[in-house]
Amino acid sequence: MTPLELRQQVRSGAFRQPTAGYCGPYAQANLVILPQAHAHDFLLFSQRNQRACPLLAVGEPGQWNLPRLGADLDIRSDTPGYNIYREGQLTEQTYALHEVWRDDMVVFAIGCSFSFEHMLLEAGIRLRHVEQRRNVAMFCTNIRNHPAGPFAGEMVVSMRPMKAVDAIRAIQITSRYPAVHGAPVHLGDPRLIGIADIMQPDYGDAVEIMPDEIPVFWACGVTPQEAIRHARLPLVVTHQPGYMLVTDILNSSLAAF
Amino acid sequence: MTPLELRQQVRSGAFRQPTAGYCGPYAQANLVILPQAHAHDFLLFSQRNQRACPLLAVGEPGQWNLPRLGADLDIRSDTPGYNIYREGQLTEQTYALHEVWRDDMVVFAIGCSFSFEHMLLEAGIRLRHVEQRRNVAMFCTNIRNHPAGPFAGEMVVSMRPMKAVDAIRAIQITSRYPAVHGAPVHLGDPRLIGIADIMQPDYGDAVEIMPDEIPVFWACGVTPQEAIRHARLPLVVTHQPGYMLVTDILNSSLAAF
Repeated sequence: MTPLELRQQVRSGAFRQPTAGYCGPYAQANLVILPQAHAHDFLLFSQRNQRACPLLAVGEPGQWNLPRLGADLDIRSDTPGYNIYREGQLTEQTYALHEVWRDDMVVFAIGCSFSFEHMLLEAGIRLRHVEQRRNVAMFCTNIRNHPAGPFAGEMVVSMRPMKAVDAIRAIQITSRYPAVHGAPVHLGDPRLIGIADIMQPDYGDAVEIMPDEIPVFWACGVTPQEAIRHARLPLVVTHQPGYMLVTDILNSSLAAF
Repeated sequence: MTPLELRQQVRSGAFRQPTAGYCGPYAQANLVILPQAHAHDFLLFSQRNQRACPLLAVGEPGQWNLPRLGADLDIRSDTPGYNIYREGQLTEQTYALHEVWRDDMVVFAIGCSFSFEHMLLEAGIRLRHVEQRRNVAMFCTNIRNHPAGPFAGEMVVSMRPMKAVDAIRAIQITSRYPAVHGAPVHLGDPRLIGIADIMQPDYGDAVEIMPDEIPVFWACGVTPQEAIRHARLPLVVTHQPGYMLVTDILNSSLAAF
């Protein structure tokens, strides 16, 4: 299935499930959609917190087709699940945005770790959560985001346990992909970034760490959703975590070198 | 002389000259300063044209001290020369901005190739324009910028002639520094990017290319000044090319890995 075929199945209602494992060579995107009045602040938040919020594309006000992301794409219907936040509260989950869409809505598409996981797997690095078909483990940290307007909060990270030699290689590989979170932000002792219990993730599923492994932490695309909850804006739309927008962008094309 | 000492000499009027060759280990910055009304569009232009406009920092409206760039820094007086554009025309060149500064001015500090040149020289790569104490050769190209609001135009590039082995190494090194233009955008035949005569640069000084060398082209921080001229906004301030803001940011700290 091509990304276009998948998006068309999403649009028709035939595909309503997490997108992990689909269209592997192509980048999937986190979404933040908000009114133009807050767009500058969120763009600034993204600029100041690029590890967590690397932007693949930003639309014009009211623009729901983003050719940069894919052919015949309609952001209002081509993602298999949306979260609608009002005053910082998750109030609705929907399959389409036609009812909440407004002419002043600005779309932000943020890189996703599925892209670099694809590159790690291609390089022969094993990822336990993938082998065990679980969601990656994600944690709130004490790493403060650089504030911009109402957006602030702390960074959310994803964690993958690895042998040191694989961790070093994973740093080299992911460094090539700043558009999908880039290099890790931490490795080793979780307490140094405010994680009290590595077996109790805040999002996703716990994953075992073997004695010859260290945890490696990457900035996570859930960070903006944390910032959005704290910002308590009248209206913000995101994707549902795991239910990503599948783009036509080849992961390999995102390599910085 | 430390960056702070240099900035204090600039502020007192004792230093009014190009900054090339000063405070080599520290990043120097291109400046764009414009009213808040145009800040989102310029931020978007920078996001969409990161090779030419990699942002080191963006201020809040009215913020003239940017601690991210340096200690005790006053953006209104610490750069040795400013260009003031009105309606797209360069109308004044000044040593301070106190008379034009407004509470809605937003500062954009953009990475400068002086940073990666320092890293290339440290790696033993010879740069002819540095050895000949000339300004680097810069060219307008036919590579269109991604437009944002009133900002558009074509990319300006800087060119450095190198032996192939040095060009390959320079690609590897500069790829590590996306915050200061990153990897080259072109190498080889200048005509492929719309440069008719490589001995007739649009800015800076011509530099000889030896038979065993190829020209290597990087996106250049003059690109936004071209975009500003075309945008014809009522008021925009920049640095004078070559008269850069010297920051406290170590070039080595900008390495992506």
